Amino acid sequence: MDDSREAALALDAADPLAGCRDLVTYADDVIYLDGNSLGRRPVSTPGALEDLVERQWARDLIRSWPAWLADATATADLLGEAVLGVAPGQVAISDSTTVNLYKLAVAAVRARPGRSRVVIEADAFPTDLYVIDGVARDHGLEVTRVEADIDDGVRATDLAAVLDDDVALVCLSHVGYRSGALLDMVELTRLAHDAGALVLWDLCHSAGSAPTPLAESGADLAVGCTYKYLNAGPGAPAFLYVRADLQAELRSPIQGWFGQRDQFEMAPEYDPVPGIERFLAGTPNVPGIVAVREGVRTIAAAGLPALRDKGVALTSYLVDLADVWLQPLGFRLASPRDPARRGSHVTLEHPQAWQACQAWIAAGVVPDFRTPDRLRIGPAPLTTSFEEVWIALDRLRDIVATGRHLEFPTERARVT
Amino acid sequence: MDDSREAALALDAADPLAGCRDLVTYADDVIYLDGNSLGRRPVSTPGALEDLVERQWARDLIRSWPAWLADATATADLLGEAVLGVAPGQVAISDSTTVNLYKLAVAAVRARPGRSRVVIEADAFPTDLYVIDGVARDHGLEVTRVEADIDDGVRATDLAAVLDDDVALVCLSHVGYRSGALLDMVELTRLAHDAGALVLWDLCHSAGSAPTPLAESGADLAVGCTYKYLNAGPGAPAFLYVRADLQAELRSPIQGWFGQRDQFEMAPEYDPVPGIERFLAGTPNVPGIVAVREGVRTIAAAGLPALRDKGVALTSYLVDLADVWLQPLGFRLASPRDPARRGSHVTLEHPQAWQACQAWIAAGVVPDFRTPDRLRIGPAPLTTSFEEVWIALDRLRDIVATGRHLEFPTERARVT
Repeated sequence: MDDSREAALALDAADPLAGCRDLVTYADDVIYLDGNSLGRRPVSTPGALEDLVERQWARDLIRSWPAWLADATATADLLGEAVLGVAPGQVAISDSTTVNLYKLAVAAVRARPGRSRVVIEADAFPTDLYVIDGVARDHGLEVTRVEADIDDGVRATDLAAVLDDDVALVCLSHVGYRSGALLDMVELTRLAHDAGALVLWDLCHSAGSAPTPLAESGADLAVGCTYKYLNAGPGAPAFLYVRADLQAELRSPIQGWFGQRDQFEMAPEYDPVPGIERFLAGTPNVPGIVAVREGVRTIAAAGLPALRDKGVALTSYLVDLADVWLQPLGFRLASPRDPARRGSHVTLEHPQAWQACQAWIAAGVVPDFRTPDRLRIGPAPLTTSFEEVWIALDRLRDIVATGRHLEFPTERARVT
Repeated sequence: MDDSREAALALDAADPLAGCRDLVTYADDVIYLDGNSLGRRPVSTPGALEDLVERQWARDLIRSWPAWLADATATADLLGEAVLGVAPGQVAISDSTTVNLYKLAVAAVRARPGRSRVVIEADAFPTDLYVIDGVARDHGLEVTRVEADIDDGVRATDLAAVLDDDVALVCLSHVGYRSGALLDMVELTRLAHDAGALVLWDLCHSAGSAPTPLAESGADLAVGCTYKYLNAGPGAPAFLYVRADLQAELRSPIQGWFGQRDQFEMAPEYDPVPGIERFLAGTPNVPGIVAVREGVRTIAAAGLPALRDKGVALTSYLVDLADVWLQPLGFRLASPRDPARRGSHVTLEHPQAWQACQAWIAAGVVPDFRTPDRLRIGPAPLTTSFEEVWIALDRLRDIVATGRHLEFPTERARVT
């Protein structure tokens, strides 16, 4: 490969998405490689929030509610269409990923009575493990954690080994939070369905950076967050997906008034709406929905196929540079090498990863650290240039080659 | 009473909270009597959100998380101290009222195994009825709905009649959403405790307008929203309270990573923190917490005793005017007459309430309508003047006296 800075600049010059970088703001002075943790801020978000806060809330007060409710539905459908590729009426924006996962997991296991097991990947994101453990315990079910190569993610053979007609639900992450492994949603969903199980996909690390073949795979359920690639800001409301033909059969355990038929009639008995809104709980967070709308619009403007192409190109470039520059310094690729099996982040393992992480941050790069010894590098396709990847990896190479990272603490500070 | 406009102006001139009206914005051209549905916008909120969006998010990106987490805790403790009168470490800001109610109700019934009933007031807010019904069904429990005078709320004798040692949980609203009845938290909590039950208080309609004697009563659990009297904006995150000595014993059914000990160690097994954070679920909504902080500061600045005094004075004035002006026109007070038993809203019943509501809105007043035939009038203590109450009731008197309301539809439009 050509590891010159000029080659990176040439890639940027040829990038069809270069114009879309203007959709977000670059007010910081860092190279930001943590777009898979918190996405950048769209240029349009402050104005949209100002309109909400100054006009819709301060002036129109409760008279804004009809518009807010309509906007929540429209934003959910836009997210469904532009991000998830699904028809309207199957996506809701609400709560957090954790709460949505809980609601759908409970609904799913109750829809498969008589089956005694829930399957989840062993290296799922912790909140997924915790939620599924709780749901299983509360329903007298056993959890089977699918063992798979930690860098490579769950393959069909891994899942097939634990499936039988006792499995009620399979919960998988489309892109692994640690490895970045992109699972084969079509094949894995087919396997689960062949065993009669429902499938719940966690899309947190794929939504907005990779196509999610929910429709093609016939996947049953999905959840995901909006503050990563969807650029909706810290703790913005999450989304959930329930396939249209399943909605009538499933019920949320949290029987909230926003899922109630003729909600403002305030009838004393719960009677959920037939559609996707039955999975809503309480009053929607309106500023959050505005932020999701503006974030999703950035993805819609760029288009998911182009974002996926850019993501593959960026991570492939990163892997190539790492092979040449970093492997000799003791780094090991801890993500799939095949770009077709990789999301938009790349993980590198190194025995002094924590020290290297601190030194990298001190050198003006923002990566992510993942236990036990991994740098997680998330160059968001919409907002990262090839030159930024070049500069960042050049700095890391320099840090580790000169041993500067060894000046940083080995002990991690704990955020509690 | 002196029903002259001059008398109203004199009350405003003597109002010790008059200066605090400047804490919120009056960008609208209406008389707003729906502060118990959506509070006004604090003057400081746009600047706080701008700082969040421009600096903390756009520039500092993920480096803001330590400050955001600290702010969430500080805001929860401020809400606890200034609004609920409780010591730190017992309040969390998270999710919606509905989700918080669910989490605490499940935790409570599981902490009272062997008891077969849950008690809730028959005229509870619908989401409370729905959530409790679902929780009871999922745990094989029976729900007893306490019948009470719909205008007067649950009295000790009403609750005592249904209590025995089979009751696991009693769920009550401190201020009734329909009637505005303010229940006797101390006495009702004592009765429930005498029967060995836990008590969960819904504070949505009292938080920020009336003292909540959680500490004095020894109440176990509480939830409430922040978008009414706390002025945190549409759908802002809700709060929950768990008495300190109960926290270790109770567990949230939603085992989320924000309740996990050493969260960022990402251990594979759920092990909840000992404190109030064990009732958190997913990633906190940061803009929402900023809005709660600014809203709570308006309440803290005014001070709850002064707000309560003003609320009593405003609603008493409203009731007096209604007696003189509206009772002859067929209106009936559907709230407790004793101000000590009333929150900060007043409900008037009238056979043509829906038509009167529409005509009142057309005349520049924003009230609330409640089924079947009630006007709910919420003059938020912080932000409403006596003169506004005078003008609003004068307009209503004029509308109904002249029959103008009869020009409006009898059929209600349904928001679905």
